[in-house]
Amino acid sequence: MSRKVAGPEIEQLIQLLARLPGLGPRSARRAALHLINKKDQLLAPLAAAMAAARDKILICEICGNVDTSNPCTICADPRRDPALICVVEEVADLWALERAGVIKGRYHVLGGTLSPLDGVGPDELNIAGLIERARGEQVKEILLALNATVEGQSTAHYLMDQLESCDVTVSQLAHGVPVGGELDYLDEGTLAAAIKARKTL
Amino acid sequence: MSRKVAGPEIEQLIQLLARLPGLGPRSARRAALHLINKKDQLLAPLAAAMAAARDKILICEICGNVDTSNPCTICADPRRDPALICVVEEVADLWALERAGVIKGRYHVLGGTLSPLDGVGPDELNIAGLIERARGEQVKEILLALNATVEGQSTAHYLMDQLESCDVTVSQLAHGVPVGGELDYLDEGTLAAAIKARKTL
Repeated sequence: MSRKVAGPEIEQLIQLLARLPGLGPRSARRAALHLINKKDQLLAPLAAAMAAARDKILICEICGNVDTSNPCTICADPRRDPALICVVEEVADLWALERAGVIKGRYHVLGGTLSPLDGVGPDELNIAGLIERARGEQVKEILLALNATVEGQSTAHYLMDQLESCDVTVSQLAHGVPVGGELDYLDEGTLAAAIKARKTL
Repeated sequence: MSRKVAGPEIEQLIQLLARLPGLGPRSARRAALHLINKKDQLLAPLAAAMAAARDKILICEICGNVDTSNPCTICADPRRDPALICVVEEVADLWALERAGVIKGRYHVLGGTLSPLDGVGPDELNIAGLIERARGEQVKEILLALNATVEGQSTAHYLMDQLESCDVTVSQLAHGVPVGGELDYLDEGTLAAAIKARKTL
């Protein structure tokens, strides 16, 4: 499977494409051929878009978001509520919440979860920056929007401890039945959480 | 899902990535973030590889292969047997045969299969070039290595008719049980073909 069949430029393209999440060696070859077949419509614009991203994308020094400005568009937006900071693991989570359009405040990207076995301690995550922001006068609430996984929840517990000394309310996303979800397909943990947090109508 | 959450450069990158085969809108976002997170290791090299591909890749005017030279490396290789031309639908098929290392001759890429309903007639495929090559003095055999699909096989029949006037042997790939294949998982057509073409030991 690893025999070289095309010139070095094409092989290089295939090998780099294969490192994208969701693409393997076989689909990277298909993608490379697709790019070559659509040179003007896709390959050239994508090469330009990647060069633009390489040259222009910055990490926001306030929240850790990626954007073409620093501070990022969200941190710089005066219409955002300065009282709320929503803490997420990754930029992808920030994007998911922005697509839902449900956060009126700003964000804080940790850059992962605590994982002592993988050598990820508090210093590897953007936690010091969060504590500093939480001490800010305008901040009233820190919403921990971490994944409902063991790693996400243990990181949330650690953050709760750290934030105790700050004068802020710490909140967390609700657990329950996803909208459109069928009970039959849900795990017992979710069902238990949904029943525990049931609402009186 | 289509709400814009990142700057125009990132959105442009995501939209172009989503047009690659194997990636959808969601995996394109993941791929874009992965690229941004690995700016120096992946994004910059990939942008350079794409720019190199855009600038250097050519279509071989003899066989239709893609390469950085025209004629391509295979057509220009004097060690290739000039008596055999292996006809394939797409460059991906040529690559698959090259990885297997089983073709001693050269190739001819049709660029697809005949499909009158989709407006693909003989003029849309690289058939005239094949007939011209088949009339060449050195060519003795045309091996039709088209997919074992209805479209591939009807295109093969059409090519057989067209090649009748040329002084060449026309051959086709054998049907049968794939190496490592289990009978239980094979369709009846394959089993019937394998039995029909059985070999006496």
